[in-house]
Amino acid sequence: MASRFRHAALVGKYQAHGIRPVLEEIAHFLVRQGMEVSLEKQTAQSTGITGYGAFTPDELGRHCDIAVVVGGDGTMLGVARELARHGTPLVGINQGRLGFITDVSIGEFAKALAPMIAGDYEEERRTMLTGVVWRDEERIFEGFAVNDVVVSRGAASSMVELKVEIGSEFVANFRADGLILASPTGSTAYALSAGGPILHPGIAGFVMVPIAPHELSNRPIVLPDTAEIVIEIVAGRDTSVSFDMHALASLLHGDRIAVRRSRDQVRFLHPRGWSYYATLRRKLRWNAGVA
Amino acid sequence: MASRFRHAALVGKYQAHGIRPVLEEIAHFLVRQGMEVSLEKQTAQSTGITGYGAFTPDELGRHCDIAVVVGGDGTMLGVARELARHGTPLVGINQGRLGFITDVSIGEFAKALAPMIAGDYEEERRTMLTGVVWRDEERIFEGFAVNDVVVSRGAASSMVELKVEIGSEFVANFRADGLILASPTGSTAYALSAGGPILHPGIAGFVMVPIAPHELSNRPIVLPDTAEIVIEIVAGRDTSVSFDMHALASLLHGDRIAVRRSRDQVRFLHPRGWSYYATLRRKLRWNAGVA
Amino acid sequence: MASRFRHAALVGKYQAHGIRPVLEEIAHFLVRQGMEVSLEKQTAQSTGITGYGAFTPDELGRHCDIAVVVGGDGTMLGVARELARHGTPLVGINQGRLGFITDVSIGEFAKALAPMIAGDYEEERRTMLTGVVWRDEERIFEGFAVNDVVVSRGAASSMVELKVEIGSEFVANFRADGLILASPTGSTAYALSAGGPILHPGIAGFVMVPIAPHELSNRPIVLPDTAEIVIEIVAGRDTSVSFDMHALASLLHGDRIAVRRSRDQVRFLHPRGWSYYATLRRKLRWNAGVA
Amino acid sequence: MASRFRHAALVGKYQAHGIRPVLEEIAHFLVRQGMEVSLEKQTAQSTGITGYGAFTPDELGRHCDIAVVVGGDGTMLGVARELARHGTPLVGINQGRLGFITDVSIGEFAKALAPMIAGDYEEERRTMLTGVVWRDEERIFEGFAVNDVVVSRGAASSMVELKVEIGSEFVANFRADGLILASPTGSTAYALSAGGPILHPGIAGFVMVPIAPHELSNRPIVLPDTAEIVIEIVAGRDTSVSFDMHALASLLHGDRIAVRRSRDQVRFLHPRGWSYYATLRRKLRWNAGVA
Repeated sequence: MASRFRHAALVGKYQAHGIRPVLEEIAHFLVRQGMEVSLEKQTAQSTGITGYGAFTPDELGRHCDIAVVVGGDGTMLGVARELARHGTPLVGINQGRLGFITDVSIGEFAKALAPMIAGDYEEERRTMLTGVVWRDEERIFEGFAVNDVVVSRGAASSMVELKVEIGSEFVANFRADGLILASPTGSTAYALSAGGPILHPGIAGFVMVPIAPHELSNRPIVLPDTAEIVIEIVAGRDTSVSFDMHALASLLHGDRIAVRRSRDQVRFLHPRGWSYYATLRRKLRWNAGVA
Repeated sequence: MASRFRHAALVGKYQAHGIRPVLEEIAHFLVRQGMEVSLEKQTAQSTGITGYGAFTPDELGRHCDIAVVVGGDGTMLGVARELARHGTPLVGINQGRLGFITDVSIGEFAKALAPMIAGDYEEERRTMLTGVVWRDEERIFEGFAVNDVVVSRGAASSMVELKVEIGSEFVANFRADGLILASPTGSTAYALSAGGPILHPGIAGFVMVPIAPHELSNRPIVLPDTAEIVIEIVAGRDTSVSFDMHALASLLHGDRIAVRRSRDQVRFLHPRGWSYYATLRRKLRWNAGVA
Repeated sequence: MASRFRHAALVGKYQAHGIRPVLEEIAHFLVRQGMEVSLEKQTAQSTGITGYGAFTPDELGRHCDIAVVVGGDGTMLGVARELARHGTPLVGINQGRLGFITDVSIGEFAKALAPMIAGDYEEERRTMLTGVVWRDEERIFEGFAVNDVVVSRGAASSMVELKVEIGSEFVANFRADGLILASPTGSTAYALSAGGPILHPGIAGFVMVPIAPHELSNRPIVLPDTAEIVIEIVAGRDTSVSFDMHALASLLHGDRIAVRRSRDQVRFLHPRGWSYYATLRRKLRWNAGVA
Repeated sequence: MASRFRHAALVGKYQAHGIRPVLEEIAHFLVRQGMEVSLEKQTAQSTGITGYGAFTPDELGRHCDIAVVVGGDGTMLGVARELARHGTPLVGINQGRLGFITDVSIGEFAKALAPMIAGDYEEERRTMLTGVVWRDEERIFEGFAVNDVVVSRGAASSMVELKVEIGSEFVANFRADGLILASPTGSTAYALSAGGPILHPGIAGFVMVPIAPHELSNRPIVLPDTAEIVIEIVAGRDTSVSFDMHALASLLHGDRIAVRRSRDQVRFLHPRGWSYYATLRRKLRWNAGVA
């Protein structure tokens, strides 16, 4: 069977200690598998690795047919956001504890990647969120998120009040520390800490989780991802919105964050035999006490 | 505009005090609107109302094109389960506090029903659960649920251990008081009390909520409703399974409850202008403290 | 029976609309009851009421033997903090919905206050928190709280990591949006929204509630109020600490917040027949659905 | 330094596989330390160990000045309940994963026990619950619990309604799957699964946790342990009450369970250096992800 992938983008977590030899080893391996390898520009610069092309994420997206990402879930999220518009599939290699979306351990990368490069893998598509911040009739910000869009109170504000509409229909006003709108991918991140449920990636919905809501019956609610959700700042000082933790601060009363499902999807590749539920069991340590 | 509905099935909560004059008033009203009216058999017997045909639910389902149900959410659930296979749409009239699915108050029934009978209404379809209990290779029980299928520990048992698979894939073993598998309709009932999220009726999924789970990370999980979910009794005495609170007791170790989305759906009719979110706000008293 | 109280401090919520005639009516009533009345300085200035002495909270604390507070729970908390060192008992009169600690409605103030002034009331003492913020060996802030001391992440920070010790014993590191340390009085405020339990005022403890903790098993914990609790900032940008919502921003890594029970207590007076549980039932709308 | 303890009661988990050689090894060790050793009767019978006196728990309580318990937290709870009236201190030796109250591992028992027998240990006292079930004016049951008293719905009942009073004051009616009244020791057991907080053993209170309450604001509440708490069965079929999981079934409407703090306390001995918080961190896996 001929190799299905030809040109790998290699991206590493820049600040990670000892990342250079790891990336070099993976690059050599990919070349030995007959692949062309290009490095992400900042990865190349911060590690000093030469001998491979160094490209911007956008260039990688146009030229590569697979991205190999070395780091944790956070690194993977960043690369996923940048490559989503190109449809480039991603494989995550983790140096430490495996993550929710980085499921190849560094010690087994060769064994795991060889069949994947040859076309033998499990593919999984994840929805993304895209949002626009409106001030009056002006778009003051646009953002993408694989995990979540979060509206939060400022540090000196005791609470924020948010008015939520979906598809022009009024849902409710929420007085809380903030509001998380999470994709299924994001449901196991911040939203879970704030009391939200886990959403299987096959669910065509977002979960809206109020953070420390004043009203005890303001429970997490799973909404269809087919309608636009608009969150308006009604009260609160120094309110901010963040897309996958990248924050835009100083929102004003009347500002509206309009969020919908992105047309782009993230494509994650996993080794054959990968299981979503096995990942949940491992990450959430289910059955730890079962003999 | 000609009347869209011709033949109404009228069903009441038998035990409700003073239900007879209420049902008679509604029946007269429907007749005056040019409709044929048939009574559900038990309703007719327990109230002593005569002058209308009295039929079994199955007969009503075959002959009537709309069902008018007088009672609370519980009454409505029972009728919905019996009529679902016939596709008969239901309207719920509530004598007391409005429910999640009974949204016409008795005082306004004439004003609300007149346009609905004429074809002016909001229609909403809700998924149902259907389940089979297997003992070895034998089907020992079959059931239907609009709200939920619940597996519970016996009163003298400290815990039940349940093994869950979905589409033949292992999810996890859960040690808990029990496990709730709820439809979006059921997500605002028992599942909510046990810590589950609200599921908008448009979500093609079920929420699985462990009741008082031993493992704190066994959080509610929203699963696609396209695959069969199998719950196996691993440990626990006197374990029971219930479909919309109708219980089958004395399950044995190894018994398996196989649950999937029913091919039938419940059809609820609401007065024009009805809003799912308004119902949530009213029932959960959201915004109660907002000026 | 001779009047037990002689000199009332009268304090109002300055910004409240239409507060002047209400305060004047209460003042007249108190004078007619044979009491001396003094106004809190800012209340006098903002309402323009004259004819009574106008004093600072500290002066009121030294001269008055009861404080009559008109406003909501927030106003009451502020006055309670200022008068606690003097041991002045407080009565709360609420213009709107009754609060947890303001339980006389404006419409019934005369009927409620008359016997209380005469010495016929229920007295309840509530513990307070006192805290010092240390930077290296320097005290950079001191604060008092009736409800809670809260350490929070900055708006642009995804998380804060806090190390907690009690009586020099290591408890744990918490990675979360923040950490609430609440008195029994504060247990029904922010801490309840963040998932904490209710603490009866008779409990000699504080509840520590992590806000959206990364570790799902980081559950609220009730700690004895006899030992000093020290919270150290380990990680996080723009972390702040607030005492009853009054914030000190820009904490640095290594800063320590040392909190203990104050020697002072708040004294709340309630009309005879007042019940803590009745207040819970009313505020939390328990039994709302019970016939 | 002379040995402080002279006569050890040795108790084992009867059903545990391979318990006999373990108990014999511990017995030999205790004898070598100069102690008299007596076996609990059932332990002696089920293991067939001879050569030591075999006594009922009550006899052990009267003659021994320390009890060495081999098993898990459940075994320890049972022995604690039986010896509490005698004030005998307990040490727990665990063959498997350490528990909340059994903190000496079998592999290190000699090293841990030697100094403890000599009087070098940490002592900790835990409160217990004692309860009486009243039917009309008759006491139909009395029970003791180290962890909790639980009132639960029957398997075929959808809910139980319970009326709670404390010190003759009405608290509320609770409609739920049940109600847990837990000591600080029990707060990390079933009550934690049902959403309750952790109570430090130094807290003079019980936590009352409604299980899956119908009213979302029916949150766990920490009550002083100085007043009697009475739970009355208002509605529900086949309701049961259990003391540390030992159930009394078939309660009737009007039955009342009166619970208060027992005069007896459990005395746990721990190796020097033992820490309550370290136990929490280990059992709840706090800080597992912290580098």
